[in-house]
Amino acid sequence: MRRRFGIFDSGIGGLTVLKSLTERLPPSSYIYFGDTARTPYGPKSKNTIIRYSIENSIFLIEKKIDLLVLACNTASSLALDTLSSLFSIPVLGVIDPAVEKACCATRNGKIGIIGTKATIRSKIYEKKIKAKNPKIETFSGACPLFVPLIEEGYRNKDVIELVVRDYLAPLKKKNIDTLILACTHYPLLKEYIQKEVGREILCIDPGEALAEEIEKTGPQDLSKESASLEFFVSDDPERFRKVGERFFGHPLPAIKKAPVPLFS
Amino acid sequence: MRRRFGIFDSGIGGLTVLKSLTERLPPSSYIYFGDTARTPYGPKSKNTIIRYSIENSIFLIEKKIDLLVLACNTASSLALDTLSSLFSIPVLGVIDPAVEKACCATRNGKIGIIGTKATIRSKIYEKKIKAKNPKIETFSGACPLFVPLIEEGYRNKDVIELVVRDYLAPLKKKNIDTLILACTHYPLLKEYIQKEVGREILCIDPGEALAEEIEKTGPQDLSKESASLEFFVSDDPERFRKVGERFFGHPLPAIKKAPVPLFS
Repeated sequence: MRRRFGIFDSGIGGLTVLKSLTERLPPSSYIYFGDTARTPYGPKSKNTIIRYSIENSIFLIEKKIDLLVLACNTASSLALDTLSSLFSIPVLGVIDPAVEKACCATRNGKIGIIGTKATIRSKIYEKKIKAKNPKIETFSGACPLFVPLIEEGYRNKDVIELVVRDYLAPLKKKNIDTLILACTHYPLLKEYIQKEVGREILCIDPGEALAEEIEKTGPQDLSKESASLEFFVSDDPERFRKVGERFFGHPLPAIKKAPVPLFS
Repeated sequence: MRRRFGIFDSGIGGLTVLKSLTERLPPSSYIYFGDTARTPYGPKSKNTIIRYSIENSIFLIEKKIDLLVLACNTASSLALDTLSSLFSIPVLGVIDPAVEKACCATRNGKIGIIGTKATIRSKIYEKKIKAKNPKIETFSGACPLFVPLIEEGYRNKDVIELVVRDYLAPLKKKNIDTLILACTHYPLLKEYIQKEVGREILCIDPGEALAEEIEKTGPQDLSKESASLEFFVSDDPERFRKVGERFFGHPLPAIKKAPVPLFS
């Protein structure tokens, strides 16, 4: 079976998820759509996010994908069920694999969650963890400066260390042994976060957790020749490339502009 | 003549302009509209910003204002001419008064400008300064972390000082004697900025420059009883209040929700 992934995010953050998939899985085809003209999704209403997610999905499905990945915490939280019931192809988000991995990994039953204000306010990770194991305690904290620090490529290490310390100090006091990085941007600060919380705490990157879960579904009959990468964005491709290459960790191929609005 | 101001901004930043007006001018009536549902304007196209600005203006004009203030650098830069020719009431922006004040104030002919990426990229301040006096040299720098630092109410002074130093270091080397804070958020960091560049450099807040210019147009025949303040936003009023009171420096009265989209 040839595997052709369609992946969307509200912008560039999903590239860390794509990175995890391409690094862990056998050669596959990937079509990535970054909805940069309508980013960010976090502050928008549930109905709007579902509508955008449906539009993004149809855009990708028309390109003959056979698996859809929501590489966006907001869309995974609010639109996954609608998309799963609407479309015939499998739809995967970033939240469930991270929750599964964290619940299996914790030894002392104390899990920390860091993310954007919108994700933390939604309590989606807490709810899913409690549904899986009501005995697990969760502690969460929003880190609103992480996304601008990362997107700006801010290089002053002293500033980054101080900000990471400010946000993680309350969680460190809770004696957590597992920490979910519940924002697709945060893997770019993983080194700082791990250093601050200490090596004994397991930091879970939801993109990696998703790649591990897909890997478990079995071997893929794929030749290296069938591998491909395509990128579409709804706003300026050049800005996406400039910031995106840091997220993806490799040079990006040609980035095409998708029509906006996707449907009138 | 009764003076009734209509003021709009893409969000909360314009509250620093409103603060300057209320502090400097005799008692007046103010209606403020924050387009929080469609913020930020910076990354959007010129046509979209003009359309939003026209909608915001009509919303305010229908409330019987007799003077319109664009308390937003992006709208002042892109929509002022269109609005001035479209409407019969006077339309004022934040850029021209700051340019005027800076050109009069500089002694060595070296003016610095700091703002968001979108404002700095537009070169609007440079162009207007050069049009006024081609001999003046300008030096500009974007400070993309200032807005998130301010909006989050981030309190770690060490972090703020380090970020301010990082952004201002290149301008300090240019021997400027005047610095325009070309973003309505920046007055909230004025103390840090002034400390970093030194007391001998004049920091110009465009909101204050605008208030001074309006003040010059003469005395207003206003009684204290006719003073009033009304607030409308296009998204959640409570979030606006929470962050807005820091910008305005006083408690805010009831904030009303305006319809979104303003026109279908």
